[in-house]
Amino acid sequence: MYRTHNCGELRNENIGQTVVLSGWVQKIRNLGGMTFVDIRDRYGISQLVFDDKNQNLCDKARELGREYVIKIQGKVIERSNKNSKMPTGDIEIIVEELTVLNKSEIPPFTIEENTDGGDELRMKYRYLDLRRDSVKKNLILRHKMAHEVRNYLDENNFIEIETPILIKSTPEGARDFVVPSRMNKGEFYALPQSPQVFKQLLMISGFDRYYQIVKCFRDEDLRADRQPEFTQIDCEMSFAEQEDILNMFEGLAKHLFKNIKGVDFNDEFLRMTWADAMKYYGSDKPDLRFEMKFVDLSEIVKGNNFKIFDEAEYVGAICAESCASYSRKQLDALTDFVRRPQVGAKGLVYVKYNEDGTFKSSVDKFYSQEDLKKWADAFSAKPGDLLLILSGNRNETLTSLGQLRLEMANRLNLINNNKFAPLWVVDFPLFEWNEEAKRYTAMHHPFTSPKEEDIDMLDTNPGDVRANAYDLVINGVEIGGGSIRIHDNDVQQKMFKLLGFSKEAADSQFGFLMNAFKYGAPPHGGAAFGLDRWVALFSGLESIRDVIAFPKNNAGRDVMIDSPSIISDEQLKELNLKVTKEPS
Amino acid sequence: MYRTHNCGELRNENIGQTVVLSGWVQKIRNLGGMTFVDIRDRYGISQLVFDDKNQNLCDKARELGREYVIKIQGKVIERSNKNSKMPTGDIEIIVEELTVLNKSEIPPFTIEENTDGGDELRMKYRYLDLRRDSVKKNLILRHKMAHEVRNYLDENNFIEIETPILIKSTPEGARDFVVPSRMNKGEFYALPQSPQVFKQLLMISGFDRYYQIVKCFRDEDLRADRQPEFTQIDCEMSFAEQEDILNMFEGLAKHLFKNIKGVDFNDEFLRMTWADAMKYYGSDKPDLRFEMKFVDLSEIVKGNNFKIFDEAEYVGAICAESCASYSRKQLDALTDFVRRPQVGAKGLVYVKYNEDGTFKSSVDKFYSQEDLKKWADAFSAKPGDLLLILSGNRNETLTSLGQLRLEMANRLNLINNNKFAPLWVVDFPLFEWNEEAKRYTAMHHPFTSPKEEDIDMLDTNPGDVRANAYDLVINGVEIGGGSIRIHDNDVQQKMFKLLGFSKEAADSQFGFLMNAFKYGAPPHGGAAFGLDRWVALFSGLESIRDVIAFPKNNAGRDVMIDSPSIISDEQLKELNLKVTKEPS
Repeated sequence: MYRTHNCGELRNENIGQTVVLSGWVQKIRNLGGMTFVDIRDRYGISQLVFDDKNQNLCDKARELGREYVIKIQGKVIERSNKNSKMPTGDIEIIVEELTVLNKSEIPPFTIEENTDGGDELRMKYRYLDLRRDSVKKNLILRHKMAHEVRNYLDENNFIEIETPILIKSTPEGARDFVVPSRMNKGEFYALPQSPQVFKQLLMISGFDRYYQIVKCFRDEDLRADRQPEFTQIDCEMSFAEQEDILNMFEGLAKHLFKNIKGVDFNDEFLRMTWADAMKYYGSDKPDLRFEMKFVDLSEIVKGNNFKIFDEAEYVGAICAESCASYSRKQLDALTDFVRRPQVGAKGLVYVKYNEDGTFKSSVDKFYSQEDLKKWADAFSAKPGDLLLILSGNRNETLTSLGQLRLEMANRLNLINNNKFAPLWVVDFPLFEWNEEAKRYTAMHHPFTSPKEEDIDMLDTNPGDVRANAYDLVINGVEIGGGSIRIHDNDVQQKMFKLLGFSKEAADSQFGFLMNAFKYGAPPHGGAAFGLDRWVALFSGLESIRDVIAFPKNNAGRDVMIDSPSIISDEQLKELNLKVTKEPS
Repeated sequence: MYRTHNCGELRNENIGQTVVLSGWVQKIRNLGGMTFVDIRDRYGISQLVFDDKNQNLCDKARELGREYVIKIQGKVIERSNKNSKMPTGDIEIIVEELTVLNKSEIPPFTIEENTDGGDELRMKYRYLDLRRDSVKKNLILRHKMAHEVRNYLDENNFIEIETPILIKSTPEGARDFVVPSRMNKGEFYALPQSPQVFKQLLMISGFDRYYQIVKCFRDEDLRADRQPEFTQIDCEMSFAEQEDILNMFEGLAKHLFKNIKGVDFNDEFLRMTWADAMKYYGSDKPDLRFEMKFVDLSEIVKGNNFKIFDEAEYVGAICAESCASYSRKQLDALTDFVRRPQVGAKGLVYVKYNEDGTFKSSVDKFYSQEDLKKWADAFSAKPGDLLLILSGNRNETLTSLGQLRLEMANRLNLINNNKFAPLWVVDFPLFEWNEEAKRYTAMHHPFTSPKEEDIDMLDTNPGDVRANAYDLVINGVEIGGGSIRIHDNDVQQKMFKLLGFSKEAADSQFGFLMNAFKYGAPPHGGAAFGLDRWVALFSGLESIRDVIAFPKNNAGRDVMIDSPSIISDEQLKELNLKVTKEPS
């Protein structure tokens, strides 16, 4: 027997018991006649005592090294020097027997909270990094969240159904990972970017409430918060309107907030149209933990011969409270920020509302104190505040201003990390214009239903058609989203046409789905949530990488197992493939 | 609103209520002044009544077709003609409003239990096949089983951790599916045949109880009960001995039997060594719902100048009760059966123990009545019984006799389909000899631990070394299995050597795992269970295909979505690949 208890559970009431523990050596201290060893497992740390009255045992203990795996038998006693920071801090174990189950070389970095290991080293030895409490607890949180998701959905009559991983490549959307078929020469499977088509087929099959916690795959160039494989909470409902779906998944979010974070949301989540989110926050995922709403100054700034504003499609601003005292250097830094390529503004206009009631701006040449006062009044600004103004093309300027808003919130410490600000963004546009391809692409995906009242505009003004689509945003992070789907074959055909699919292409890619729609498709809709992102949000982490047991780096490599790797000629031959470019 | 109730829940207590239902038209009957429509959803069927006093509505109802999706509002009334076979059979709904939500073409086969659709047609229209009650209920059962698996494991402190799907190809075992990497030119990921390596790394990380319900992939030529992607309940425990693991997962099996099938197993599951399973049943997964144990006749049949027996390494038999009256034709059929290539015996010797106490056999030339009586006594056979004897090479003959045993059980209807006979088969051999490669291969996998007491034989007699490996067998089906793993680096190196890995090959394939073992690997072991097979067993189905929502056919094709398929030249170019053989 390896253990009677784990290393985190012994308490005062165990005093006097003989116990067996197994775990890793966390720390060894030799104090004169005593040797103290901290033993660690998943559940916690306990203190072992080796008394040098038993010289043999004590010698053995002194030969232990960090991360050795040991088993001990001993007696639980009360500690004279209690440690209130440790759950097991009231007791210690006088060891009677010690077995070394496995030795350990000195690990390449310390298994402690403040480890000396750099990022790359820790990724290579991820199995050791996972021993660290902060990494371990992310995975335990992830497990608990997935479990609570299942509990909630099961209670609500959802059925988890596994959809296939080896599916068919479709050119729409992001790039597919493909899998060559050996049995079907020259043909390929694709890994799913989402189970979208299958969950819609399941609705046609009559499974009116489906879900799946499922791996999805996208062969994209990676950014910090992207992984080639990621996990979705994928859901779909039949005979449900948008309102039913929002309520159902708002319920899910509240269930997680309550059961995981201990936060009760009694009120309904805020809802905001996509148009308002863009207008007031310059983002389809605004962070509402702080205000700093945009004000549209386009009208009141025109007609003073300031060409940049006069010619701008849009002039908008935010008000940074109590920042009128910003120095030249601070303002230059903000100008540099907005000029970054990722932000994309050409320049920044500021207006300082001085404490004495006067105004100082970078456009004093063109505007009087009275003009500037009007702008300040549009914000109900107070003396001491600072207006930051961007101008230009409407959509781009809104987006840049949105980034400036976040930057200012960070600089001013406006963001309360203990606050959660959930928000439904609704009424997304159905299409976005793709400048490169000179055509519309689906903002969500080609199965998204237009709003009933906008259907007439499909032919005349597709860019203005709104979709029955919604995103759940928490603290500026898009946790998930979904839509009501098209269940009418005619509307679906029209969508494909607008998206530039030839009849042949639509048939070859989605023929089976179009065919399925002919046999009684119910009205349906759904949503998908990013489990990785949700766990990261609840962990207070920026990157999803930290909540994935074995993530890949930005080059799509697993540096621990050294993958991807070359395969044998034999394998290539069986697959009827030839590599045209050798690995560099 | 689409519904106030589902189509399976209305009862007497709802009489008088106005309800809204949505679902599919199952059946329409025009009976004089009334039209009856059965409306169906996932939950059941309700009867709708259209009274021709409302002529408009009645006309509309008569235009409905099978599988139309409709929404109705109406009043629940008591049925005059109750149907006790339907849960909703006490009531019907007088319809006041009817909306056609979607029309349906006439489905290619009837959506009924006894459908007129052939297998191929139903697979092509799988989304319609899934509407049928018998297919639907398999997926619901699957969901419930997965849910109960998670409940049990969660209660026992297991953590579900997702391991990657894009991993590294290893030549050991079955053939991998591979995924070309675009970002790492000329290199490939592989899809996991199991998360074996990752779960062992998680043990090294200190997650002492891990599980995952996870897709696994094998590029094998398919048989009826194989799929290229299948689902495993994958588990691993640290600081656990074989006994702990068997008890934990016997607990899981009992939990499922109780909560899913309502069957209580109070006793411990039977355990049998692999050697005994082969000796008495000729199989490592014996069906113990019936007896018909083998008797080894090798000794008592020798020395009578019957060359075939004299030269045979093994002569064994089963006793078929009350079959002495078998006709020539029946015995010939059995001879044909054992001679099938899949069974592989050369011939069959029979001994009839006639009702009058005399013996009649196919080897009467060589053996006296007294000889034959001795054979019968070895079985405690009774007059009227029939002995069926096979001989030859020991292992092959045992296997053939095992198949004859199953064949006889089927012919004699000895198998009670309502009975469950679970069994642990233990002490598997560590290796099997691969005649083709002239070397040993791992019977389970290269990480399986030999039995402590057999370790010395690794060098001298590897074929006799037993493993700490076990399978859970229910009714002759291998539901799962596992082993204690090697946690000692030296033993692991020795295993690789015995398995014919060069040091370079072992390093390149498993270097990261070997490296991990250096930093304090705990003793660990685990098991994996085939979810598909387990669900099929509980459903009373032969093939796992019926418990998978969207299965592939024997050519690895999904005939519904028509996958695999060719991909674009653009995609191939991005992946630096060339197809050497075009699709046929």
